[in-house]
Amino acid sequence: MVHNGIEYGVMELIAETYDLMARGLGMKNDEMSRRFAQWNRGELNSYLIEITAKVLAHVDPTTGDWLLNRIQDVAQQKGTGVWTSMSALELQCPVPVIDAAVAMRHLSTWKDKRELASRQLKWPHHFRGEREPFLMQLGNALYAAIIITYAQGMTLLAAASRAFKYDLNLADVARIWRGGCILRAALLEKIRVAYKARPDLHSLLMDPQFSAELMARQNHLRNVVGKITHLGIPAFAFASSLSYFDAYRAERLPANLIQAQRDFFGAHTYERTDQKGTFHTQWQ
Amino acid sequence: MVHNGIEYGVMELIAETYDLMARGLGMKNDEMSRRFAQWNRGELNSYLIEITAKVLAHVDPTTGDWLLNRIQDVAQQKGTGVWTSMSALELQCPVPVIDAAVAMRHLSTWKDKRELASRQLKWPHHFRGEREPFLMQLGNALYAAIIITYAQGMTLLAAASRAFKYDLNLADVARIWRGGCILRAALLEKIRVAYKARPDLHSLLMDPQFSAELMARQNHLRNVVGKITHLGIPAFAFASSLSYFDAYRAERLPANLIQAQRDFFGAHTYERTDQKGTFHTQWQ
Repeated sequence: MVHNGIEYGVMELIAETYDLMARGLGMKNDEMSRRFAQWNRGELNSYLIEITAKVLAHVDPTTGDWLLNRIQDVAQQKGTGVWTSMSALELQCPVPVIDAAVAMRHLSTWKDKRELASRQLKWPHHFRGEREPFLMQLGNALYAAIIITYAQGMTLLAAASRAFKYDLNLADVARIWRGGCILRAALLEKIRVAYKARPDLHSLLMDPQFSAELMARQNHLRNVVGKITHLGIPAFAFASSLSYFDAYRAERLPANLIQAQRDFFGAHTYERTDQKGTFHTQWQ
Repeated sequence: MVHNGIEYGVMELIAETYDLMARGLGMKNDEMSRRFAQWNRGELNSYLIEITAKVLAHVDPTTGDWLLNRIQDVAQQKGTGVWTSMSALELQCPVPVIDAAVAMRHLSTWKDKRELASRQLKWPHHFRGEREPFLMQLGNALYAAIIITYAQGMTLLAAASRAFKYDLNLADVARIWRGGCILRAALLEKIRVAYKARPDLHSLLMDPQFSAELMARQNHLRNVVGKITHLGIPAFAFASSLSYFDAYRAERLPANLIQAQRDFFGAHTYERTDQKGTFHTQWQ
């Protein structure tokens, strides 16, 4: 199930990359296909990137148009993504990229609503800047967001293993997935190595190699999310990967305010940073 | 339950606003308190904004420090947010701001992990730009994101009403909430009017008044999300509100690529834009 959840996340990230290239940069399918094929020869090497290049290049024999352009933009699903999101809620172990992928599939089914709204809630999207450097950043951002997606999924697997006593060996899981599933990707070898070295690693974000890769690419991920934000193209999975990354590495979160509000309106009490115990305040 | 889900969303948006003001702009608590009090006299008028102003101004008698600064940044929850997210998954009716609020409460509990990660995954956050115009934009962005949160929650209520034959009158729901719950807000009167005029409204985003308010503020929401992205402060609820808005108003989504990928690796078939029926392609 978590394999499929990660698959949902990676597919959505690739779809958002395609949307940004096609609607944002105005690239043609063959040009995008070549870019994905090029990415597939580097660190992004994976079955899903490979088939994306092939899908983009496929010509419809009946119309002579790119087949992809004639496919309805309404995504179906069989349930494993939803189950992954539900398990993450139960185990209190967030998987926001997977949640975003599920939400985007659901939103895609509101086709008639979207068409209506597109005429009422307009925003002009014009890409400004140089295309080639941006595409380089986009490849790095995609790689970083995919690492973060795997990190979410693997941390969920570890939480499930603890909760349900599966005694999972995550290095073996990575090795098996590398063998021949839809997720098969060069990246999985690095994941295997990471868990082999530290079976109790809480998050792949903290593995030295992935940390270094993310540190080198976070600026590109930020630039891509920032650009998308201003273009008005939805890139919920990209944005969710960055939000998770920034929350995970936040020494302080504003949850103190949430605790104070809860104590204000419901006397739910709070803890302090400077004293042990449970406290309640008469705020008024 | 949905009332509480929306409450989670609005509380998280306020918390992210506070984080951005405190960590991003370096504002002091009394200054932030005055800003929230000012916002509470305008379109943001609501109980949650009002108590935020009071919480920020509260001085701890034992230390003389702002009490909020001594409260642990680990949020608790009683479950209604998680239930709302689960119901949204079951009804295939996304509520991303509420999901983000739940995820951020869960992530807040990883306090020791966050402290470790903050030392390994660094990003220098320096606000650049003029503070006063940015604060004006921040208020508008908060208002827009709150509208989008209510839109998600009300659309979920309508979906539940259809699925379970509740026969809910959403104008009455808004009127009752306005009466005396934690959500009580000036905004609810506009929501009542919207559903009174069109009981079958699919989304508040499409109500003429809210559409106009969002059109006037989307640029500010984009600027705030873009700024946060570059500051490295997690603002998952803000980002999720914008992603939902942009997905809802997207005539075309890249779900065609997801359908093509699914057909490639699993022969799951797809529909076409130019012909009726269900299709499968030999992609290789």
